[in-house]
Amino acid sequence: MITSSGSAPSPRRRSEKSRRATLTAALELCAENGYGKVTIEAIAARAGVSKKTIYRWWPTKGAVLLDAVTELVVSHSEFPDTGDIDVDLRTHIGMLVNLFNSTVMGPAYRGILSQVLHDEQLARAVNDELVIPRVALVYERMRGAQEQGQLPPDADLPLAVEMLYGPLYYRHALGRPMPDPEHVETLVAHVMRALRSPERS
Amino acid sequence: MITSSGSAPSPRRRSEKSRRATLTAALELCAENGYGKVTIEAIAARAGVSKKTIYRWWPTKGAVLLDAVTELVVSHSEFPDTGDIDVDLRTHIGMLVNLFNSTVMGPAYRGILSQVLHDEQLARAVNDELVIPRVALVYERMRGAQEQGQLPPDADLPLAVEMLYGPLYYRHALGRPMPDPEHVETLVAHVMRALRSPERS
Repeated sequence: MITSSGSAPSPRRRSEKSRRATLTAALELCAENGYGKVTIEAIAARAGVSKKTIYRWWPTKGAVLLDAVTELVVSHSEFPDTGDIDVDLRTHIGMLVNLFNSTVMGPAYRGILSQVLHDEQLARAVNDELVIPRVALVYERMRGAQEQGQLPPDADLPLAVEMLYGPLYYRHALGRPMPDPEHVETLVAHVMRALRSPERS
Repeated sequence: MITSSGSAPSPRRRSEKSRRATLTAALELCAENGYGKVTIEAIAARAGVSKKTIYRWWPTKGAVLLDAVTELVVSHSEFPDTGDIDVDLRTHIGMLVNLFNSTVMGPAYRGILSQVLHDEQLARAVNDELVIPRVALVYERMRGAQEQGQLPPDADLPLAVEMLYGPLYYRHALGRPMPDPEHVETLVAHVMRALRSPERS
């Protein structure tokens, strides 16, 4: 293979190309056959890389798919900031709905979550690599809203995130459909009311 | 076997005894070995019933364990009604925390939820036999609170239930520990504030 500059590709570039091919192959196979039928062998064959290469970077297929989902979630979604926290949280929760429902990422994310229940290492990775960094962006956006007076300074941000994300995971856990946009709007409005209304003593 | 009245046990009584022995054996094996290692064979052996008897009543081990958990949840928990809806919801959510954490029922319920992600029939059964009837009791209690003026007449009860249950299923899905009683109290207080505070137009 000849690169555009005419020189041979660098090892780093070759390695990045193998990495991307592996992530794409894993997502495709998961969408086509379901998480349970994905194997490292099949990923390697479709990506045109060796199994050894895959195992050098990832311990399990769950770890491959987690990286694939994480990259898509991060690259496809700049965290929204329109200046209206309610609107931005609706957009953000809508993206989580899309992650569950997506034909590309949904089977992978739902498969990862089924594996998390049996695999502590993957559970830690999902929290550390995907969920906690995303939640950090929610906190950052919410702190901005606090500075602008859209949320009270003492609002319980971790609880707010649990109340926003929780209903989606509840529905997922019980095999129920995700909420529609109108329902997401009502959910966000309720959580915002909970944060904004004064505590009864 | 001789019953206290001296007559032979009726088929109905024998059958009820086998049913109970099966449910107890299933819960014990799940707590001892984990959901993944429970088999119908092992349940039958411990309960002293035939595999055929078990398959006559239940299609899968998940269905056996669902019946076992449902009976314990129903029998162990009269729905609370102290007259204070906030207190009663705290108690109710505390019971759901206990279901996840219990050494007897926790492994069974968490195992059932892992199976639900792969088994639509079990997903329907969990909703129809356990979750929906429990939620109906929450609605009933909340409607009582509406009549007593503790909740507004137009409160969105289904959303309230999702906001209360959601954080527990979110934590479960990501392998995180259940909330402690103080956190449950804060959660209930927030949901109640969301329901009670007026909508901004």
